[in-house]
Amino acid sequence: MSQMHAVVTHGPGEDTAPEGVNSSTVGNSDTARNAPDASTPEDVLASIPASAYWGPQTERARHNFTVTGISVASHPGLVTALAQVKQAAARANASLGLIAGWKADAVERACQEIIDGGLRDQFPVDVLQGGAGTSTNMNANEVIASRALELAGRHGEGARIHPIDDVNRSQSTNDVYPTAVKLAVAARLVSAVAELRALSDAFDRKGDQFDSIPKMGRTQLQDAVPMTLGQEFHGFASTLAADAERLDEALPLLYEVNLGGTAIGTGITTDPRYRQRVLTELARITGRPIRGADDLVAATSDPGAFLTCSAALKRAAVKLSKISNDLRLLASGPQAGLHEIDLPARQAGSSIMPGKVNPVIPEAVNQIAFTIVGADLTVTLAAEAGQLQLNAFEPVIAHSLLSALGIFEHGCRMLRLECVDGITANTARLTRMVSDNVGAVTALTPHIGYGAAARIARTALASGRSLAELVVAEGLMTFDEVSRALSQGQGATRASADA
Amino acid sequence: MSQMHAVVTHGPGEDTAPEGVNSSTVGNSDTARNAPDASTPEDVLASIPASAYWGPQTERARHNFTVTGISVASHPGLVTALAQVKQAAARANASLGLIAGWKADAVERACQEIIDGGLRDQFPVDVLQGGAGTSTNMNANEVIASRALELAGRHGEGARIHPIDDVNRSQSTNDVYPTAVKLAVAARLVSAVAELRALSDAFDRKGDQFDSIPKMGRTQLQDAVPMTLGQEFHGFASTLAADAERLDEALPLLYEVNLGGTAIGTGITTDPRYRQRVLTELARITGRPIRGADDLVAATSDPGAFLTCSAALKRAAVKLSKISNDLRLLASGPQAGLHEIDLPARQAGSSIMPGKVNPVIPEAVNQIAFTIVGADLTVTLAAEAGQLQLNAFEPVIAHSLLSALGIFEHGCRMLRLECVDGITANTARLTRMVSDNVGAVTALTPHIGYGAAARIARTALASGRSLAELVVAEGLMTFDEVSRALSQGQGATRASADA
Amino acid sequence: MSQMHAVVTHGPGEDTAPEGVNSSTVGNSDTARNAPDASTPEDVLASIPASAYWGPQTERARHNFTVTGISVASHPGLVTALAQVKQAAARANASLGLIAGWKADAVERACQEIIDGGLRDQFPVDVLQGGAGTSTNMNANEVIASRALELAGRHGEGARIHPIDDVNRSQSTNDVYPTAVKLAVAARLVSAVAELRALSDAFDRKGDQFDSIPKMGRTQLQDAVPMTLGQEFHGFASTLAADAERLDEALPLLYEVNLGGTAIGTGITTDPRYRQRVLTELARITGRPIRGADDLVAATSDPGAFLTCSAALKRAAVKLSKISNDLRLLASGPQAGLHEIDLPARQAGSSIMPGKVNPVIPEAVNQIAFTIVGADLTVTLAAEAGQLQLNAFEPVIAHSLLSALGIFEHGCRMLRLECVDGITANTARLTRMVSDNVGAVTALTPHIGYGAAARIARTALASGRSLAELVVAEGLMTFDEVSRALSQGQGATRASADA
Amino acid sequence: MSQMHAVVTHGPGEDTAPEGVNSSTVGNSDTARNAPDASTPEDVLASIPASAYWGPQTERARHNFTVTGISVASHPGLVTALAQVKQAAARANASLGLIAGWKADAVERACQEIIDGGLRDQFPVDVLQGGAGTSTNMNANEVIASRALELAGRHGEGARIHPIDDVNRSQSTNDVYPTAVKLAVAARLVSAVAELRALSDAFDRKGDQFDSIPKMGRTQLQDAVPMTLGQEFHGFASTLAADAERLDEALPLLYEVNLGGTAIGTGITTDPRYRQRVLTELARITGRPIRGADDLVAATSDPGAFLTCSAALKRAAVKLSKISNDLRLLASGPQAGLHEIDLPARQAGSSIMPGKVNPVIPEAVNQIAFTIVGADLTVTLAAEAGQLQLNAFEPVIAHSLLSALGIFEHGCRMLRLECVDGITANTARLTRMVSDNVGAVTALTPHIGYGAAARIARTALASGRSLAELVVAEGLMTFDEVSRALSQGQGATRASADA
Repeated sequence: MSQMHAVVTHGPGEDTAPEGVNSSTVGNSDTARNAPDASTPEDVLASIPASAYWGPQTERARHNFTVTGISVASHPGLVTALAQVKQAAARANASLGLIAGWKADAVERACQEIIDGGLRDQFPVDVLQGGAGTSTNMNANEVIASRALELAGRHGEGARIHPIDDVNRSQSTNDVYPTAVKLAVAARLVSAVAELRALSDAFDRKGDQFDSIPKMGRTQLQDAVPMTLGQEFHGFASTLAADAERLDEALPLLYEVNLGGTAIGTGITTDPRYRQRVLTELARITGRPIRGADDLVAATSDPGAFLTCSAALKRAAVKLSKISNDLRLLASGPQAGLHEIDLPARQAGSSIMPGKVNPVIPEAVNQIAFTIVGADLTVTLAAEAGQLQLNAFEPVIAHSLLSALGIFEHGCRMLRLECVDGITANTARLTRMVSDNVGAVTALTPHIGYGAAARIARTALASGRSLAELVVAEGLMTFDEVSRALSQGQGATRASADA
Repeated sequence: MSQMHAVVTHGPGEDTAPEGVNSSTVGNSDTARNAPDASTPEDVLASIPASAYWGPQTERARHNFTVTGISVASHPGLVTALAQVKQAAARANASLGLIAGWKADAVERACQEIIDGGLRDQFPVDVLQGGAGTSTNMNANEVIASRALELAGRHGEGARIHPIDDVNRSQSTNDVYPTAVKLAVAARLVSAVAELRALSDAFDRKGDQFDSIPKMGRTQLQDAVPMTLGQEFHGFASTLAADAERLDEALPLLYEVNLGGTAIGTGITTDPRYRQRVLTELARITGRPIRGADDLVAATSDPGAFLTCSAALKRAAVKLSKISNDLRLLASGPQAGLHEIDLPARQAGSSIMPGKVNPVIPEAVNQIAFTIVGADLTVTLAAEAGQLQLNAFEPVIAHSLLSALGIFEHGCRMLRLECVDGITANTARLTRMVSDNVGAVTALTPHIGYGAAARIARTALASGRSLAELVVAEGLMTFDEVSRALSQGQGATRASADA
Repeated sequence: MSQMHAVVTHGPGEDTAPEGVNSSTVGNSDTARNAPDASTPEDVLASIPASAYWGPQTERARHNFTVTGISVASHPGLVTALAQVKQAAARANASLGLIAGWKADAVERACQEIIDGGLRDQFPVDVLQGGAGTSTNMNANEVIASRALELAGRHGEGARIHPIDDVNRSQSTNDVYPTAVKLAVAARLVSAVAELRALSDAFDRKGDQFDSIPKMGRTQLQDAVPMTLGQEFHGFASTLAADAERLDEALPLLYEVNLGGTAIGTGITTDPRYRQRVLTELARITGRPIRGADDLVAATSDPGAFLTCSAALKRAAVKLSKISNDLRLLASGPQAGLHEIDLPARQAGSSIMPGKVNPVIPEAVNQIAFTIVGADLTVTLAAEAGQLQLNAFEPVIAHSLLSALGIFEHGCRMLRLECVDGITANTARLTRMVSDNVGAVTALTPHIGYGAAARIARTALASGRSLAELVVAEGLMTFDEVSRALSQGQGATRASADA
Repeated sequence: MSQMHAVVTHGPGEDTAPEGVNSSTVGNSDTARNAPDASTPEDVLASIPASAYWGPQTERARHNFTVTGISVASHPGLVTALAQVKQAAARANASLGLIAGWKADAVERACQEIIDGGLRDQFPVDVLQGGAGTSTNMNANEVIASRALELAGRHGEGARIHPIDDVNRSQSTNDVYPTAVKLAVAARLVSAVAELRALSDAFDRKGDQFDSIPKMGRTQLQDAVPMTLGQEFHGFASTLAADAERLDEALPLLYEVNLGGTAIGTGITTDPRYRQRVLTELARITGRPIRGADDLVAATSDPGAFLTCSAALKRAAVKLSKISNDLRLLASGPQAGLHEIDLPARQAGSSIMPGKVNPVIPEAVNQIAFTIVGADLTVTLAAEAGQLQLNAFEPVIAHSLLSALGIFEHGCRMLRLECVDGITANTARLTRMVSDNVGAVTALTPHIGYGAAARIARTALASGRSLAELVVAEGLMTFDEVSRALSQGQGATRASADA
């Protein structure tokens, strides 16, 4: 990227600087009802790096918010979504004659550069920022204005593209930012769900592979009745597939936006035709079924879609954590544990215990889940804290939810590739555990009743004698009847797998 | 209720006692692989109250779990749902010839008594119980068996109805209990949503009533731009209506049950035709669109429906808390606050400050919301803790979620009747706050630009001069143009309200 | 209890009624800045039960708050603490001549009745109430006033004891209620910690009993190195003892109260000497090291002590949950699990699987822990929601924290008596698991290095040959050296147990 | 940094490579009980960057864990603490003759480089890693071994420093990692508390500055009684100072470490004298009062200190959030809000509303608090999930807690510098709000009773007449008496400020 734009855009005394980012714009802060006392406009200008397209509003925010050290640029989807909204607005404004055609063209081109992945380093403000996203919106306005003017090649003529009067025309942070966050979350959700479904499929393949391997089912960690290892893995697949459906259900809520409502949902400063046009443009640009909220006042302060999305993610994370726990338990051992399956060994497990291999991938997934549950709480707290016509805490919602979706997606992929795909079964051990187990007595209860079955089970366990032997000895069933009943218990297992 | 059943059912040496609850059944505990060391079967029998229909399994559980002092009976919907499941099972079993017709009839009648609200005092076990609901299921089995035999009037003949072999036939706690909890949660959800919709309607009526009252909109607690009080209240209505839709979406998940899967989803002990029959009966009895889960193994341990329901409730609670915060803020004062509205006074507000009136109803709603968010966390933790083929922690899920739905329903009704319906507006004060406010300058930005508007606003605020006066004095617009623009700002307000 | 007091205290036209609860007092609500619109003072009076000592303020609150159905009376410690505060205030007021001696005597006697466990049914208001505890304080004022007058036997003389001007003299809900809640929480904390220590002691006794039983230690569910079962149980004891210390550390914070600060901490309406006197009296009455907060304005709105207490409880609950998980895992089986220990069987485990015994007591403890973690979140949300000079949400803090402490205490006792005390070890199985295990190779690493040890371990596991055999065969150590090293591994175990 | 070390340390066929990181060490993974199936040792070696000091264990972990994209290096305090532990161990091992003197010297120097801030780019593994920190420990072992050998300048001689047998001597991840995390958390806690105290001091200075400015106190957002703005700000200072004390109390727990317990607390592989020596060295190196845990088995799996620290941080965050809420509310307006104070304007508040200034700094602090509360939940979940002899989830505890402490520290500094220090009072408005307010009637209650005072207040509010006028007109007090009582109400205010 050329360094020239820096000169172009923010030289304090530079005549050719666009209005939005020159010294008179710096004064926007002076127009604040109380002048900032910490630094003069000149100080702010002076601290803007030479390579920056951004202007004083961004620069102030960069200095004001020193929280995480993580910049908005770390959420590229959010930056893209902002550019999409700005591009849609430019088109709508131009179609209504609200901004000049050449400005709209230039703004569109600058936005497209961002959509195509460019200018990411131009979004330096901390993700945990006050101001309900105003700094992020201002940042986009300034960068797009500067870059658009540069692209238009008309700064020599004294032309200006104003970050607010042009780029932000017919907009407020309060409709632009929530809309962009929703788009960014939706995009991330789509890719996360794809990974979740891929993981579910991986479990399904393992289920098919393990379909004929018997094992003891366990409830409350106690031996229950027989099942197959395939059923267990198909179960993992099914439950995650259901979670994917729940996540999908959040999408329509995310595609319902308050764009066009401007400051508080009343659409102040907009042409009556603007709202429909900008929504149509945004749908076209994103290729998504964007629709406008019915009640714009409500929508302006409503974090409901984020709550629903975060909760669906929390649900999926909780299920994933349960499955990780199961995998670790089933692979416990190798000698003093269940050791029903082996997870692929990924690395030496210990710095002191030679040869030890640990279930490090599921352990990482557990930790991802714990982080997501924590993030859902952060989102919840931020949602509850909204006041009157706005929720000022959407930046932390955006950061928490986008980060949570990101690690969820990574976790699904990691679990699939580094663990599930390589799981193997200890078939001999599994089979032996079933054939020895008195839990099979349950299959006899329709024939001998619960009371007698309990007595037989107790005796079998204490004496080591087989169920069949005891039942026949007591004259309760013939040997053939017992055999048939026990194999039906296994049969039920298979029947259910078929169903 | 006759005390006779006590004699009928648990006299230790009583020949006429049904098998399930006489002394030989007490021995069920002895059939435990390790005999309980704390009390003998005789002790347990002796401690059963004379008025009890329950038997030794219930009695043991009553002694084992001394946690909250709140019994299962405190969730009448859960008791009803259990009876519905037992009734459906009796019909299905009878139709397959698995239990005698007279037993099925008697069991059905006993269940119907419970469904009709009877026998509630017969469910004494603590809501926070171990055992994945086994104690609650055993309790239902014992009570229904005892009462059914009594209703059948055949104990003189030495007839028996066995709590397990008859009442629990073709069932396991692991399919019965989750199914019953889902039905109970669904029923409570339906009534809670009805109250939520009634509250939303109440806000809507207030919105209509306040439709022409102007007020300053606020974002980030700072004066923003004008709107109407009606828009604000319509916004409350809209956002809660959306929450009601989200809650409704949890219903189909709750109606998807694992009944017929028995112990771990393999359907062990069941006739192949049983599952479809019991589902059909259950749908008929409840009048709800019950359907069986596709993957019964997955469904047996899957708390997903509860997570989704709890999360939707959390969302609604968070929104309700935000609205309560807003109501309290708008009613602040009466002299040193916003005092835009008055909430109906419900009681003296202070034991020291005479005449003080507090927003006690919204404050209670806030606390309801805080409790619900906490309950959602409890549900989340319990859901994550499931292991292998079962989630053993559904009792705490059931208790937390049913309690949360209950206080939510109460809170919606209380807020509507004791607060919202009686809210009045301080119209004069609201109107004055708008007409004075320099925030209206926003409506001028399309005409004079953001920079000039900011300068004008600052001057107006410092000098007390009107926006119109200053704009005209600077020659930026004529007086007519300013008036038109400012009234369009208000017009936008109305337009949006129309949309 | 005589029904007479009803007549004494709230007959609408009854001349002898004390001022605080007769019809003119009902008018307190009329003195509300806006008159309640829902019911007239007469309606309120009419709805007070004949057996009630309470008056119109309580009655209004009873009708206003229909949330949980759980009354303040369900927290007897809170009622006691309120009476202690009122008693202390009466003494301080009397010593300063602010209320008549006979009134103070009567109030003291009425308070003592409550402290002694009486009049519990006189606290009917819902625990989830708005108003920052005002209704609970008003309730105490009214009940104490009515009962005191009755005890004084002077109502025939037309004498009055006013619930506010006398019983609440020099007080505000805003100092009385937080003080009472702190005392109630502290009392409950003391008894909960005693149960926690008893549980820790029970684990210690088991640790002693199991001291010489070897077992494989496990990290990340994988076989690690040898230890003793005694070390494991001593570890449970140690970690819970540390939690008890943390809980104890919350006590001094709970004993630091804002009593004397009245409405907002400025002490308005109090005599300058009052504060010290009432604190001295309260310390004497409770026998606790009560001290006044340094900054009364801060203290009035500060829920910090509750946050600290709730967090310490959460920590202990989390540890208890981990231990319950461990117990369930160690007892898993009996055939297809670890089955290192047996928990005492408490009840039949299944309605379908005969002879199954489940770890129901630890499962209940897990659910207690999940509930406590949820309650801590509720407390956190309520604490965050305080505004300006008060936290209006202390009722939900009080209810959540007292309930959480209660179930924690019950859980500790239940776990000790119904589970820990009866745990037995499967010594033979444990010993065999250690002697077979290649994890012992770790003890050889100081002698042969990590790389060689890893290779030996792998070979031993694959071939079934012993570590010693392989090491000697490779010429790495002599047989004697290996034996000494391996027994030192065990020795280290013992050494650490000694330390 | 010279690139030479890459050649030095991991050239596969390089004779001079130290044993720990050469190709034979790569085989450590092969010594895993099941060989990794994803990549060969050669692949791993090949992918190590030329500039890396790390070896194959680190490299494997770098590939295994693709979660957050945030590396361990992002927590420099953790890297430092690891080096401190390794340095202490090297000294202790050397003193016992367990590793050669020249190796210990070299290891010490390499550690010192890290302690001094060097080699930070050598810790590339994802912060959310499975394996209980093993990868981080292995990473430290490998980097220190490579660098030490380089520093020793003896690789030409074929000398080796083994990452495990030398650098990790007498250690396990299970004692090294928890110890290092505790040290890192403690160090961060100390600096965070310093910032919290600086913030408290800033509030105190404002309290002094505002000491004589009267204002209306508010409870439940309703006008209460008079106080001073100074009292309010002193209250902020006091409550945060108390939080600082609570945070300090976590320090001794963090300084209690399990170092010397190795794998599971039994001290396996250690010389009996080692533990005391390494603790003494660590105390000397860190300058902190390190002490060994009493029960090493318990300590190995005990996350209690992190729970306590996280909870104390949560408490402080909750308080900070409440204060931020108050600041935003007190600064609301400027026309249609309370507008008691002005926060320093930091940036233009809106992209659409000219001149609007928002409380962006407190808003950022709210979001910090929401994040910290979420992080505490993550820590809690991870703590609960520990199993048997270890908590495998300390990496997420470390990451969450260190990050939370970091943003807390930044938030305190930001709030102080960018907001609190520049707050100004609107004295005229504040004074007027007090003098008008009928809330002052509370000061009259000791003289005229609650009932009369309530009636007077209501009349004053409705009529606009002054309290004094009404009281005198009713003959309840003389004008002088009223004046004295009202000024005593203010006097109480001052008295409390003095106390």
